[in-house]
Amino acid sequence: MVRRQRLRAAGFEIEQISSGADVDPEQLKGSIEGFLGFARVPLGVAGPVNIRGAAAQGSFFIPFATSEGTLVASFQHAFNAMNRGGGAVALCADGRVSRAPCFEFASLTEAHAFAGWLLQRLALHQETAAATSRYCRLIDQRVSVVANTAYVLFEFSTGDAAGQNMVTLATQAICERLLRDMPQTPLSWLMESMVSGDKRATPMAFRTTRGRNASAEVILQPKQLSRYWRSSAENMERAWRQAVNGAAQTGTVGLQGNVANALAAIFIACGQDAACVTEAATALTRIECTRKGELYASVTLPNLIVGTVGGGTYLPTARECLSMLGCYGAGLARKFAEICAVVALAGELALVGAMASGEFAQAHAAGGRKGCGSPNGSAES
Amino acid sequence: MVRRQRLRAAGFEIEQISSGADVDPEQLKGSIEGFLGFARVPLGVAGPVNIRGAAAQGSFFIPFATSEGTLVASFQHAFNAMNRGGGAVALCADGRVSRAPCFEFASLTEAHAFAGWLLQRLALHQETAAATSRYCRLIDQRVSVVANTAYVLFEFSTGDAAGQNMVTLATQAICERLLRDMPQTPLSWLMESMVSGDKRATPMAFRTTRGRNASAEVILQPKQLSRYWRSSAENMERAWRQAVNGAAQTGTVGLQGNVANALAAIFIACGQDAACVTEAATALTRIECTRKGELYASVTLPNLIVGTVGGGTYLPTARECLSMLGCYGAGLARKFAEICAVVALAGELALVGAMASGEFAQAHAAGGRKGCGSPNGSAES
Amino acid sequence: MVRRQRLRAAGFEIEQISSGADVDPEQLKGSIEGFLGFARVPLGVAGPVNIRGAAAQGSFFIPFATSEGTLVASFQHAFNAMNRGGGAVALCADGRVSRAPCFEFASLTEAHAFAGWLLQRLALHQETAAATSRYCRLIDQRVSVVANTAYVLFEFSTGDAAGQNMVTLATQAICERLLRDMPQTPLSWLMESMVSGDKRATPMAFRTTRGRNASAEVILQPKQLSRYWRSSAENMERAWRQAVNGAAQTGTVGLQGNVANALAAIFIACGQDAACVTEAATALTRIECTRKGELYASVTLPNLIVGTVGGGTYLPTARECLSMLGCYGAGLARKFAEICAVVALAGELALVGAMASGEFAQAHAAGGRKGCGSPNGSAES
Amino acid sequence: MVRRQRLRAAGFEIEQISSGADVDPEQLKGSIEGFLGFARVPLGVAGPVNIRGAAAQGSFFIPFATSEGTLVASFQHAFNAMNRGGGAVALCADGRVSRAPCFEFASLTEAHAFAGWLLQRLALHQETAAATSRYCRLIDQRVSVVANTAYVLFEFSTGDAAGQNMVTLATQAICERLLRDMPQTPLSWLMESMVSGDKRATPMAFRTTRGRNASAEVILQPKQLSRYWRSSAENMERAWRQAVNGAAQTGTVGLQGNVANALAAIFIACGQDAACVTEAATALTRIECTRKGELYASVTLPNLIVGTVGGGTYLPTARECLSMLGCYGAGLARKFAEICAVVALAGELALVGAMASGEFAQAHAAGGRKGCGSPNGSAES
Repeated sequence: MVRRQRLRAAGFEIEQISSGADVDPEQLKGSIEGFLGFARVPLGVAGPVNIRGAAAQGSFFIPFATSEGTLVASFQHAFNAMNRGGGAVALCADGRVSRAPCFEFASLTEAHAFAGWLLQRLALHQETAAATSRYCRLIDQRVSVVANTAYVLFEFSTGDAAGQNMVTLATQAICERLLRDMPQTPLSWLMESMVSGDKRATPMAFRTTRGRNASAEVILQPKQLSRYWRSSAENMERAWRQAVNGAAQTGTVGLQGNVANALAAIFIACGQDAACVTEAATALTRIECTRKGELYASVTLPNLIVGTVGGGTYLPTARECLSMLGCYGAGLARKFAEICAVVALAGELALVGAMASGEFAQAHAAGGRKGCGSPNGSAES
Repeated sequence: MVRRQRLRAAGFEIEQISSGADVDPEQLKGSIEGFLGFARVPLGVAGPVNIRGAAAQGSFFIPFATSEGTLVASFQHAFNAMNRGGGAVALCADGRVSRAPCFEFASLTEAHAFAGWLLQRLALHQETAAATSRYCRLIDQRVSVVANTAYVLFEFSTGDAAGQNMVTLATQAICERLLRDMPQTPLSWLMESMVSGDKRATPMAFRTTRGRNASAEVILQPKQLSRYWRSSAENMERAWRQAVNGAAQTGTVGLQGNVANALAAIFIACGQDAACVTEAATALTRIECTRKGELYASVTLPNLIVGTVGGGTYLPTARECLSMLGCYGAGLARKFAEICAVVALAGELALVGAMASGEFAQAHAAGGRKGCGSPNGSAES
Repeated sequence: MVRRQRLRAAGFEIEQISSGADVDPEQLKGSIEGFLGFARVPLGVAGPVNIRGAAAQGSFFIPFATSEGTLVASFQHAFNAMNRGGGAVALCADGRVSRAPCFEFASLTEAHAFAGWLLQRLALHQETAAATSRYCRLIDQRVSVVANTAYVLFEFSTGDAAGQNMVTLATQAICERLLRDMPQTPLSWLMESMVSGDKRATPMAFRTTRGRNASAEVILQPKQLSRYWRSSAENMERAWRQAVNGAAQTGTVGLQGNVANALAAIFIACGQDAACVTEAATALTRIECTRKGELYASVTLPNLIVGTVGGGTYLPTARECLSMLGCYGAGLARKFAEICAVVALAGELALVGAMASGEFAQAHAAGGRKGCGSPNGSAES
Repeated sequence: MVRRQRLRAAGFEIEQISSGADVDPEQLKGSIEGFLGFARVPLGVAGPVNIRGAAAQGSFFIPFATSEGTLVASFQHAFNAMNRGGGAVALCADGRVSRAPCFEFASLTEAHAFAGWLLQRLALHQETAAATSRYCRLIDQRVSVVANTAYVLFEFSTGDAAGQNMVTLATQAICERLLRDMPQTPLSWLMESMVSGDKRATPMAFRTTRGRNASAEVILQPKQLSRYWRSSAENMERAWRQAVNGAAQTGTVGLQGNVANALAAIFIACGQDAACVTEAATALTRIECTRKGELYASVTLPNLIVGTVGGGTYLPTARECLSMLGCYGAGLARKFAEICAVVALAGELALVGAMASGEFAQAHAAGGRKGCGSPNGSAES
């Protein structure tokens, strides 16, 4: 295929993606039990997209693992528009992952005393955490007391790993030490009290980074909007505003359109934990007409659980996909987070462009598997 | 491998999963653009789990596509416990998928007049929707008026398809007819106003099914809890209650522990849209000690976007995984939904069991890739 | 005082408000226990404001019970601006109040069977409800099943009463009949399961009216914006958009600025249940620049728990305040709801006007009690 | 009346409450404009309730301003039960009030640079804030960057004032200085971006105190539960759990039953800002059966906007009510917050007791104005 040749010519390794060479199960130990083989998800590439990020700079081909027809095409369309606008700016600002144990005492007085005592021990906890990993560092700790129970939030940096296991082990070590040292034994305790937001969307994400906090923005000129979406900055702004007022009626967390589409496809391609899309898709999208009639579009992802080492990153096709982005290995997590933000932004532009141009259905279904060219024109997916 | 032999001996076809035979790109048309090959996600199997569902009845091997170490093992553990308790009961009660256009008028008076007019036209809209697909049926329509804008919610049944494209096309047809017929032209309109909850967690899910609404429950005896989680019904109830009080501090939608883990792994294995896990993981988990000291555990998933036809279900490994569950093809979506609910329940039991036994970290990390057996004992994932 | 004379001259009765004549405690029986006297809240009047509502038509003086300095003045300012724009349009669209019992069974199978059975009995329940009150009518019933428990939502119309007690008694009667008739005795049940949204903000409000659903809108010309807030439609739209993006980070319910200020002041003045402001303030405010550069401003209050009969409406000063609005007694609840919506709209305009003009602090504090004229300019409230 | 005599004999001043002596309008300047007189809300007293708080210690009569029949009686009932259990423990842990300006820049790069710059200036901002008031102190500042806009959260302590105006003026002073000093002029800015949570329920309350953070707890013996609510700890726990699962379906913020009832009645009585009940009612209620079969009940109010100086506290009847609690003036805000938490707890006990005993309707309506003793038994309020 021409596309494969093009990427190979560009120096990318795509052996595992394109041929499915065998893998030694032993190599996967630690990633899977009951191993049977591989689920294979169609992988398409769109790009290049030009990024002027703090860490991600240049032209990137983006791998998407998905079976949703038209998805890759709509990203390609948005990338083209964004490139005409000079590419996207991106910045990954912060990175931390939390765990949240809780401790129940006989009374609220004891719980408050414990909270005060614990908050004095930051340095000790940092030392304990640091001993569990070369990369895990305790950055901050907070406590909220709910009557007789203290809910603690430990926030860690995790190097270039997604870090969910890393922070679990560090928190376990801190808790063990706490339990030895604490003046008053708790009635009960949990290592994770569901306060961390792990695997679920919560508005906490906006004030307490979980994972990486990355933003991307782009400014598009009227003629690009007209060319790519037969629309204008004013109309796209209006469409988005109507949708925001729609979302506000639903109690959703954050304000975004279809960030999950972008993240699920990249996460699966790049060996990230796809279950974390539930929280990583907590985003704030902005689609605004500037005073000059340009379109200002941005996405902020404050809860982007991604890593470029550890987890599933080493898997055959994941490694190839990360390498395609220049994001395989240490020192590259911020770069990867910025790329994710740019891709999410492209997805939002594609959605709002379709909304504003009245082509929402086409964008979703034009390339639909059975919908396209089927004799009776019916859609069955 | 022994496991492959066992499943083959049981009559399951796992050629695509285990060997990665080549696929004709032409076959994938409609599912992917920019096709390059396949992302391969490790696939493990756990089971059998015994299910006494309304549609799903028998013993099932469950395929999980994941690279999270210990995930499959912890489901296997929970399945074993559940089987000892006689297996899980499950029921898929309802199925509908929504789209939500909006129409803006010059004044709130016009918007209300439109709302009244539209609500009279249900039969007409049903006819229009039915003409777009053999399977898509408009069940209900509702309107909320926000000053000059009417937000409409169309709810469709979609046969055994997940149905997101199907309802988009039906809604487009209805809207086109509306625009022709409506007495007052709107200032603007959107085919999807983000009121539907598509690709995001919203509490609407609990009162307006999106996808399938499936529940699973199991009753476990004290000796099983003691054996499998060194815990008791009372302690598991307490642990869950503390976690509920934790979650309540975060503004999360629904009450659940790690349903996303179960759903992401099954969705990827079975050719479902992994981006929909964001909404499908909106669940209500219950972990309760009965008056007899047994554990009553249940999960309700009111927003389970799944299908057994269309979408990615036909893909090589997805078809094998669905077939393994006896869920490939027409008439099987409720069965598949019930299985998903049972697996989600197992995941919740595993989580709460680990919480209550103080083995949360082990459950998460014991089998961690580098964590296990690495000389310095550090966790790096 | 001049103001009292003016209102008296206009035919309003303000004896109780202005003089505090004594009240026979016997008269208050049913409204208060442990009666000691009255809490007196300062009552200011702003207006007139011109309203072109479906039910409320004319010029209205609005009573505000508050001790927040500058509050009444900022409403007066907004009323003046709105009057210049021709007054506000308002419409109360719907009215219903819900109660939500739940019934727990031995299994999810039984719970689903119950749900199916119950949904067949609407006519019977309507008959039962109607027998409890001349005004209470059961409009609809819905069920959501959470594993072995069925959560029912009964929706009633309540005439011109706020209706919280009315629907409680009707629901009790329905439940008693259910318990006699139901084929399977529940393990336990509650008459109110917190699904109704009573006394708390929930996004359900937008899709299931609780109380009255009222909207108000106004269009203001650039010169009015310039005159009253030294701002423009474009700047006010931008300010609101930034605030919406702020609110989206907090997980709040609805999108509104300070609707609680308007509603608390009117509710206390008019004998409404001030605790219901928690839910009634769930609103959707829109501040938008039209294509012509005008400002379109609207507020939708889908959850406005108000009545013009029953509750505290008969109390001495409440009756006077309701009468001042022409809203005391039967047949006037929709009118009162429309007035509330217009006042809430004025409050939102005042807020956004202050935001956009950079005079937020002045609007809040200029008239602050000690802040004004205190030698050192410090604010101590 | 006997009750008045009893309170007078106990040394309480209730002249304004009981007689409505005239007030010089001049005295109210700063609290109200368009002054007409007073809205009079029936004031009932319940108590005494025994409190063993950190600041509030002793027996307290509690004033309630309400027109909801049975409300005061149900609190009296719960106080009696709580007193039998030795009274309630209470603790006010923290106190701070926030304001949240935002600053929009030309790009996300500038916004991040501004955020970094601002975070270095804490000491300077503290100095600026301190100069605006003897009582206002800036405790902390945080920034979240949403693409090109920095949302800042300033957290202040406000002495014994509720402090909403105080923090507004301090934030204005800080912003003015920021605007002079900042290296890059913002495109636009708002003094309040709706991130603070002012006048609305948000889950942020649980991790960022707004107002006072106060908890109360009580342990009740089985015989008390049997006597006061014909129920048991186990049944009350179950009832609450069902209600929690009900609330979880609605997307509500926090987990509580009817805290708004308690707070609205106290706030109006004591000259607090009743509009703040919308946020102050964000609570976490716990109703749990201990291992010994006792009932552990608690309420945590992390967002209790109250003050004992400033605002409406000086008003004639408010001062009397605050004095009745020993809470009028400086140094008493924590005490008042603890009392509020205990009263909220009583309200939650009364609700759950009614739920569990099947007397929900009676608790709500038995004393209903027309409901009680009316010949046809109908409820009309």
